[in-house]
Amino acid sequence: MQVLKDRIRKDGIVLPGDILKVGSFLNHQMDIALFNEIGREFARRFSGVPVTRILTIEASGIGIACVTAQYFNVPVVFAKKAKTSNVADDVYRVGVKSFTHGRTYEALVQRDFLSPSDSVLIIDDFLANGCALEGLVSIVREAGASLAGAGIVIEKGFQGGGARLRASGVRVESLAVIERMDTDGTIVFTG
Amino acid sequence: MQVLKDRIRKDGIVLPGDILKVGSFLNHQMDIALFNEIGREFARRFSGVPVTRILTIEASGIGIACVTAQYFNVPVVFAKKAKTSNVADDVYRVGVKSFTHGRTYEALVQRDFLSPSDSVLIIDDFLANGCALEGLVSIVREAGASLAGAGIVIEKGFQGGGARLRASGVRVESLAVIERMDTDGTIVFTG
Repeated sequence: MQVLKDRIRKDGIVLPGDILKVGSFLNHQMDIALFNEIGREFARRFSGVPVTRILTIEASGIGIACVTAQYFNVPVVFAKKAKTSNVADDVYRVGVKSFTHGRTYEALVQRDFLSPSDSVLIIDDFLANGCALEGLVSIVREAGASLAGAGIVIEKGFQGGGARLRASGVRVESLAVIERMDTDGTIVFTG
Repeated sequence: MQVLKDRIRKDGIVLPGDILKVGSFLNHQMDIALFNEIGREFARRFSGVPVTRILTIEASGIGIACVTAQYFNVPVVFAKKAKTSNVADDVYRVGVKSFTHGRTYEALVQRDFLSPSDSVLIIDDFLANGCALEGLVSIVREAGASLAGAGIVIEKGFQGGGARLRASGVRVESLAVIERMDTDGTIVFTG
């Protein structure tokens, strides 16, 4: 998606440790006009695929998921991150390792909101090591729902999560795949 | 906003401790068609008021803020909740007491995203004791920006936050104000 790649090159900031900051338009301040273009592109890529629910994870996936949902006319469910162990048995839960924050958290979704009759499209802002996405996939499987695929805004192709998920049979559509990047500002996209 | 009040009566669940669960349509699963009606209503109530940015706080305010922003054609900024003390000096920060979780957290907004030339509309899903909203107001003031007001989906009128904020001169527009509610399912709205 060229407009997105141009925006990443223009406003993205590469920091040491393979960190790409896109807080000025994607995940702290949010450019809603761009989100609409992103939503339309996800709808184009997944056209013809049944989707009954969009699933994302708090916090930065929520805005993109909600704007995208308008192009599918479906509700959004977001997984909540919990650091405390919760004894409620009315939730799907999965442990997710966060490389960014160096800790493991639990992602929770209330059981009422996903069922075997659902076809779920997962939406998120970033795909790097793939742990968050794997956690969401596992929740969809546990619910017995169908997985339509995953729509990702920015994939760090060099961190392997996307390759592993695709190899496991998940359809992953990333709008910008970064092959390599450098703190001198170099950002090279795949394709 | 009648459609919202009807939905709260139909799908809201009152739990002990003045807790109203609206996770099936507002803040866990999200009904995006309803969010569009909410956004249109905020646009109607704040029509004629200059708005250059919408400010909210993670996580449950983000979806409503993003859909609402489409009716104002402005970007959204969300305050991040941090439990660890962060030494970065490029952020506005404020302590917020959470009655729900019985702890205090810091709300952070990167300084780049709010400036004295901004006129800020704050959007959030709930207003109860008002601490989160007061924190966001204080960030707007610290940035030297104008405050257009606050658009709230559900106000627990009996908890006093809204009254205190209005008395301090903040324009608060709440789409459903609850006067009292009970675990037997009774929910009485003001007006």
